[in-house]
Amino acid sequence: MTTTDRITLYYAPQSRATGARVLLEELGAPYDLQVLNMKAGEQRKPAYLAINPLGKVPAVHHRGALVTEQVAIFIYLADLFPQAGLTPALDDARRGPYLRWIAYYGSSFEPALIDRFMKREPAPVTQSPYADFDTMLGALESQLARGPYLFGGQITAADILWGIALNWTMMFGLVPRTDVFVRYAERIAARPAFQRISAADDEIAAAHAAAAGV
Amino acid sequence: MTTTDRITLYYAPQSRATGARVLLEELGAPYDLQVLNMKAGEQRKPAYLAINPLGKVPAVHHRGALVTEQVAIFIYLADLFPQAGLTPALDDARRGPYLRWIAYYGSSFEPALIDRFMKREPAPVTQSPYADFDTMLGALESQLARGPYLFGGQITAADILWGIALNWTMMFGLVPRTDVFVRYAERIAARPAFQRISAADDEIAAAHAAAAGV
Ligand SMILES: N[C@@H](CCC(=O)N[C@@H](CS)C(=O)NCC(=O)O)C(=O)O
Ligand SMILES: N[C@@H](CCC(=O)N[C@@H](CS)C(=O)NCC(=O)O)C(=O)O
Repeated sequence: MTTTDRITLYYAPQSRATGARVLLEELGAPYDLQVLNMKAGEQRKPAYLAINPLGKVPAVHHRGALVTEQVAIFIYLADLFPQAGLTPALDDARRGPYLRWIAYYGSSFEPALIDRFMKREPAPVTQSPYADFDTMLGALESQLARGPYLFGGQITAADILWGIALNWTMMFGLVPRTDVFVRYAERIAARPAFQRISAADDEIAAAHAAAAGV
Repeated sequence: MTTTDRITLYYAPQSRATGARVLLEELGAPYDLQVLNMKAGEQRKPAYLAINPLGKVPAVHHRGALVTEQVAIFIYLADLFPQAGLTPALDDARRGPYLRWIAYYGSSFEPALIDRFMKREPAPVTQSPYADFDTMLGALESQLARGPYLFGGQITAADILWGIALNWTMMFGLVPRTDVFVRYAERIAARPAFQRISAADDEIAAAHAAAAGV
């Protein structure tokens, strides 16, 4: 990669951007962080809205283009570094299921989570993008029960996404702490990349809190 | 492709599965349809729930594996047929934005649509996955305004997804009929593949209605 190929990650600690940073570490990717202080509302100020009009992180800038949406970012970054072994190649039989479970995160799991978090009535099962919460989560759990990873013995970028997502959603009591979910999330959280970024996140978050005079 | 490589599309007419079928036609892909009669509730009967526990279409079976979620299906199918020219290669500078806008459909547009369809209060802008409806749609409109396609002059699978989605969401009054959206949706709807599948959908839907004694 040349310098212009470096990856910029728009970031906030302890947010949905954490997974993208852990993935970059797992991939051994050269990247620069642009940290937004969400406690100070930087993600909704004009400078950042000019980059991502939704004011959301993660967002990645690479080769002159912006990539938003965790689902896109995970697929994109993992494919940039095939040598890291975290992405099934285009002609690998696991490619379809790999894309399925990453997309499931954004199109089924997150909508279900928001309904639960908002304590609101979900759409009727035939209208809801995820059917109902238990069905949605049950399908994921069956897939993970095969273990140790989503697709058996070999970890992929999809596991980084899900391990971290289950970690924080169980912490917030949004997802039940079943054996399958707990063991899986622990497996991902025990990895050096996650440990490193968690510690770094604590430091950034502390600095933001200090700046806010908390 | 050998026979075992044929693609099976679990399908229902005039549904979110229509886009996947149009894409298969655009790709010139060899596929078989498994039509579910949603008027008869076939998508929620045990036979189909054993295939896709969420009871949703589209779903694709290929190389012994199931792929669900429109976002995954679009990326997956288009990558299977690079010769159709509907997918930027992994090393194409448009690859990231291509994934971004496909993922945006599932993680931002659809959640916004469901909130609107359900006439319910969306989550606060900082909690909602899509910020707010107008911001979400405005970002899409700015991208489409460059035209004629999402990434300028060359159509991709992302345009098939969005053209068809805008077509039905404008029809249902969920998305405003702005010039940009109308012209874009018309551009996709005018293509022979869409025309062909629309006509075929009308026939299947009529047969289902007749079977129901309507
Ligand atoms: N649809 C986006 C949603 C990302 C998202 O919800 N990001 C949160 C981070 S936890 C955010 O930036 N919230 C800050 C805000 O909206 O003010 C995705 O899947 O990436
Ligand atoms: N998260 C899924 C949602 C698909 C979906 O909502 N499918 C509708 C088709 S319009 C469906 O199958 N509904 C029938 C039902 O749930 O009974 C995706 O993005 O593919």
